Amino acid sequence: MSDKILIVGAGAIGGFYGSLLAKAGAEVSVVCRSDYQIVKQLGFQIDSFSLGQWQFQPHQVLRHAGDYQDQADYLILCSKVTAQIDRVAMIRDAVRKNTVIVFIQNGVEIEAELQAAFPDNVLISGLAFICCNRLAAGKITHLAYGKLTLGDVPSGVSAQTLHLQQLFLQANIECEVSKDIIASRWQKCVWNAPFNPLSVLSGGLPTLAILQNQIGLVRRIMQEVCDIAAGCGHTLPDDIIETNIQNTFAMPPYKTSMLLDFERQHAMETEAILGNAVRAADRENIDCPTLRTVYALMQLRELQLHAESLEKIAT
Amino acid sequence: MSDKILIVGAGAIGGFYGSLLAKAGAEVSVVCRSDYQIVKQLGFQIDSFSLGQWQFQPHQVLRHAGDYQDQADYLILCSKVTAQIDRVAMIRDAVRKNTVIVFIQNGVEIEAELQAAFPDNVLISGLAFICCNRLAAGKITHLAYGKLTLGDVPSGVSAQTLHLQQLFLQANIECEVSKDIIASRWQKCVWNAPFNPLSVLSGGLPTLAILQNQIGLVRRIMQEVCDIAAGCGHTLPDDIIETNIQNTFAMPPYKTSMLLDFERQHAMETEAILGNAVRAADRENIDCPTLRTVYALMQLRELQLHAESLEKIAT
Repeated sequence: MSDKILIVGAGAIGGFYGSLLAKAGAEVSVVCRSDYQIVKQLGFQIDSFSLGQWQFQPHQVLRHAGDYQDQADYLILCSKVTAQIDRVAMIRDAVRKNTVIVFIQNGVEIEAELQAAFPDNVLISGLAFICCNRLAAGKITHLAYGKLTLGDVPSGVSAQTLHLQQLFLQANIECEVSKDIIASRWQKCVWNAPFNPLSVLSGGLPTLAILQNQIGLVRRIMQEVCDIAAGCGHTLPDDIIETNIQNTFAMPPYKTSMLLDFERQHAMETEAILGNAVRAADRENIDCPTLRTVYALMQLRELQLHAESLEKIAT
Repeated sequence: MSDKILIVGAGAIGGFYGSLLAKAGAEVSVVCRSDYQIVKQLGFQIDSFSLGQWQFQPHQVLRHAGDYQDQADYLILCSKVTAQIDRVAMIRDAVRKNTVIVFIQNGVEIEAELQAAFPDNVLISGLAFICCNRLAAGKITHLAYGKLTLGDVPSGVSAQTLHLQQLFLQANIECEVSKDIIASRWQKCVWNAPFNPLSVLSGGLPTLAILQNQIGLVRRIMQEVCDIAAGCGHTLPDDIIETNIQNTFAMPPYKTSMLLDFERQHAMETEAILGNAVRAADRENIDCPTLRTVYALMQLRELQLHAESLEKIAT
């Protein structure tokens, strides 16, 4: 019997990975709000640089998780992590006793609220290393990368995680498992913490220009993230900063997710990526003056963005 | 015999203070480049919130300092301080043996290049606490404040400074003298270092919104400027941070000069205000992680602004 999978928050990331699970034979349904009408009618059209083009018609297309009448083996949450989104409320009505909850989301220290709300469910944390955009309702373009990293919260690799990994591998996408997914999340933050906010605060510079002009600033932020991770008990590899910097030099010019959100005047993941890291630093008494400054400036930038959009509504 | 005064860089600040010296009876000539034609024909129209409206017809209107045929008692340099402007070259051809050189400009540690180029002239450093804009060629509006602080470089108050003070006082503008003008410059930087860049990096927030939302960030930057000043031998008053914060709460919503430059896509005084402070910190081995981060981000923002204006020229 095929796995029943419910994707909640089926934007670019959710639609893309959901379509791969359907390719692997799972029965995949989606909850999507803003694009509901078109996705219900036409499904998703996916255009991938590495895997070709295909159509993904979900088993069910729903407006709310509570509309799902079935029992999901895996519920995969792919929304952004912002103050405006209540992640627990988004999924609560579709979580059953045996539902494995997976979240493929950005940020650090985003586990606790799900652990508290669903203490008896297996909880899998996922990291997507992917460049993937929603072009229009139901239209997804996969531009680069694609690797997933999965691991159980708080640590270890369960049979359910291995099974999910197998499904992704069957669909020809790279998928690793991590015994310490919390550390993996901090590792991803080493890249996100400098490049996401700097792309916004600089007014839209691509990653390469940031690196070429302010490599010292990038290194300081990366080092502070490593310090915080270590303070939280997750010592990262010695070469992680150098590796991230060399990889970024080798990347094509790249617009970060935060910059894309900013340009569309969408809420940014400032709290999930920067705020949670600074709060962890405060809790563990770790010094992070550079990250703290960048976080404060992003809060000001978001405030102004919000004021601008209010102005637009008013006029 | 009336004082011969040459204003170099007669924008809003130079035009305004020059017009006051003319009111006080001095023979005031101006060097202005971009507005030369209109100022030559029509002079300056000044509209002040506190002093009324008046017309200022300079004795001579010149394109270059070298065109000044006379011998100036005071040459007052009022240009911005940016990498694009060679302050020594701007004034060299009008500096005579007895010319007192005055600079009314922003920034810290901006004395050395003038001291080196004109070692035998009296050098007066001036700080303008004023909100004053150029509305159009020759049209200046004085919106708030107006106080000048004058002092000799490197320290002390000469007879020439006292005489200049008298002229300003005769024209009904507040004018103080400072025995330690270098310290006064650091004092002004306590306000400029947070509010100028934060207004730009936030996307245009006024000073009050910055203060209401990120007072901690403002305080950290102010404290670092105090630390650097102390490291340079200029210990600032204990209450300077509190005084600046309370005064800013009491100010009307205010656009900083850096924000105005940014909005007009003009060069900003990032190096004079932030870069020089960070370089002083490095020289004196003072820690300034917040200021350093803000400085690096402003460099990125300027890079992007420059890229944008290049794009505009190209299209």
